[in-house]
Amino acid sequence: MKLAILFGGSSFEHEISIVSAITMQKVFKKTELVNIFVSPMREFYLIDKKDMKSKYFSSGDYKKAKKLQLQKGGFVIGGMFGDKNIELDTLLNLIHGRDGEDGKIASMMEFYGVPYISPRVEACAVSYNKLFTKLFANSVDVKTVPYELLYKNGSREIKTTLPVIIKPSRLGSSIGVSIVKEESELDYALDVAFEFDDLVLVEPFMSGIKEYNQAGCYTDKWELSIIEEPHKEEFLDFEKKYMDFSRDGKVGEADVDEAIAKKIQNSFKTVYGNVFKGSIIRCDFFVQDGEVYLNEINPIPGSMANYLFEDFENMIIRLAQNLNFEQNIKIDYTYIHSIQSAKGKA
Amino acid sequence: MKLAILFGGSSFEHEISIVSAITMQKVFKKTELVNIFVSPMREFYLIDKKDMKSKYFSSGDYKKAKKLQLQKGGFVIGGMFGDKNIELDTLLNLIHGRDGEDGKIASMMEFYGVPYISPRVEACAVSYNKLFTKLFANSVDVKTVPYELLYKNGSREIKTTLPVIIKPSRLGSSIGVSIVKEESELDYALDVAFEFDDLVLVEPFMSGIKEYNQAGCYTDKWELSIIEEPHKEEFLDFEKKYMDFSRDGKVGEADVDEAIAKKIQNSFKTVYGNVFKGSIIRCDFFVQDGEVYLNEINPIPGSMANYLFEDFENMIIRLAQNLNFEQNIKIDYTYIHSIQSAKGKA
Repeated sequence: MKLAILFGGSSFEHEISIVSAITMQKVFKKTELVNIFVSPMREFYLIDKKDMKSKYFSSGDYKKAKKLQLQKGGFVIGGMFGDKNIELDTLLNLIHGRDGEDGKIASMMEFYGVPYISPRVEACAVSYNKLFTKLFANSVDVKTVPYELLYKNGSREIKTTLPVIIKPSRLGSSIGVSIVKEESELDYALDVAFEFDDLVLVEPFMSGIKEYNQAGCYTDKWELSIIEEPHKEEFLDFEKKYMDFSRDGKVGEADVDEAIAKKIQNSFKTVYGNVFKGSIIRCDFFVQDGEVYLNEINPIPGSMANYLFEDFENMIIRLAQNLNFEQNIKIDYTYIHSIQSAKGKA
Repeated sequence: MKLAILFGGSSFEHEISIVSAITMQKVFKKTELVNIFVSPMREFYLIDKKDMKSKYFSSGDYKKAKKLQLQKGGFVIGGMFGDKNIELDTLLNLIHGRDGEDGKIASMMEFYGVPYISPRVEACAVSYNKLFTKLFANSVDVKTVPYELLYKNGSREIKTTLPVIIKPSRLGSSIGVSIVKEESELDYALDVAFEFDDLVLVEPFMSGIKEYNQAGCYTDKWELSIIEEPHKEEFLDFEKKYMDFSRDGKVGEADVDEAIAKKIQNSFKTVYGNVFKGSIIRCDFFVQDGEVYLNEINPIPGSMANYLFEDFENMIIRLAQNLNFEQNIKIDYTYIHSIQSAKGKA
């Protein structure tokens, strides 16, 4: 299988997408990878395997790579003697944050008919906007942390008791997120959050909780990862972030009560449902007093959460073999023909 | 102003999009239009004004028009001596149904940096999926018709009392929609609906209701249309559909009680909010016993509902002048630089 890895993008998470893509080079052993970089200016470049090093991108050297155009059927290199197609069987969308997780890449692959592993556009809307995540999860009876909404030019009075977490509604990776413990910190935290979004969620800071991550996908069957208990820090710092996106070894399974594990797995399947078909997602859950709450959906997790799966590479292959495609719509102009007849100018 | 009209698309509503686009040629008096057709195969063609006739498309003659490529900055005509840019100030997305209303076109315009009038990708998700419309409307305290959900391979037992309306969750323009009055009709109606979607909504068929349409947008101020009372038929037939998409004259204002009109206008503004900025939408409401219910959001209404506005052309110009653009994300590789330093290989 030829698997294209699409990474980079015009996103706050551009750089960690590069780290994720470099990790993929080690994770895939038998699959031929075709690396396609989306530059900060949103131009496509075909990157040689030997150049898949962070410095190649940070130095701007990638600009010497071959530029690609996306068109009907896939990517091409334009040239004097016509276009040359880039052969690929499936594309893996590995652009974290904007472009990758907001539905742009999914839309473009769908429009141009490139088979792709990624949340589809609707799944992106559900996971990219934290308010929609809550509405959607609640509609399928999966509990979420309670919240209130604040609007950029609206009142800043909050009803939730401190401490609270302030989150911009869109964006991921803790960008613009603050924990507010004292009344006096609230205004600044809101200023920061409103830098990134017009809509901000205020959630109670839940204490005495356990945090668990569950990743997985549906191929021709459910393929769930082990449950991970992430290292808890108040803030996701630099080291931790790098760890997450560059990780290719295995991690240990969380020591979690069987009944809770079952609840987490069921919640994951319910959320994934039909909406997330075609993608591998990671759901982050909180557990408090035996109750499971969906915290967020990570629709393109760091390094695809490969380290949580027994056999990641073969799972990707099975997923690629089980993608759904859009319905074929036959357009035969029956309707226009009948208008023309009705008007007597057929 | 040079306004590109983008129409056609791989959609069940491909043909009525052509009718809408032809209508635009009459509606715009002083604006220079650049007509860009998306063929059933999803190729872009630049269409001469003189060729904006339905037969040009139904006969396949459009294939003789100049083919365009979409790339960074906009559309180009490729040629022996390099690419020629198609000049345009703003693009109006007039693709009804799939491609236009499901977020694909919005995503592509955003990605390639083309200023565009259209629901953005998130707004598309909210309006394209009728379940999401309800979740979203209810979350902002706008009432909707009650519903229950059926899944393709799930139970077909319904709790709602007959008569009911059966609707596929996605798609618009009454495609796959049936009214079921007798138990015996239910199975067939569900078969039809499941042809189009895995998820189906069952709603009570509300009697004694009035139906009202409200269109509008936010430019630098609210610009609401008159309220229209559409002709009520059980099914939207051929003639009626053609009327809607080819209409360029004015229609009469509905005779509606002032308090109800106010409620409709307020519900419209609440639904439009920030989510639909950049687009002109039409919301269809039901009124029963003085209560206003959102029935559906039409994010790209037939002929842009031009006939409901006092001065449609100038409103479009104002909308084009007040579009929001994505935040500029500066990518300076600080993060990768610090990884490199930390690893001692800067």
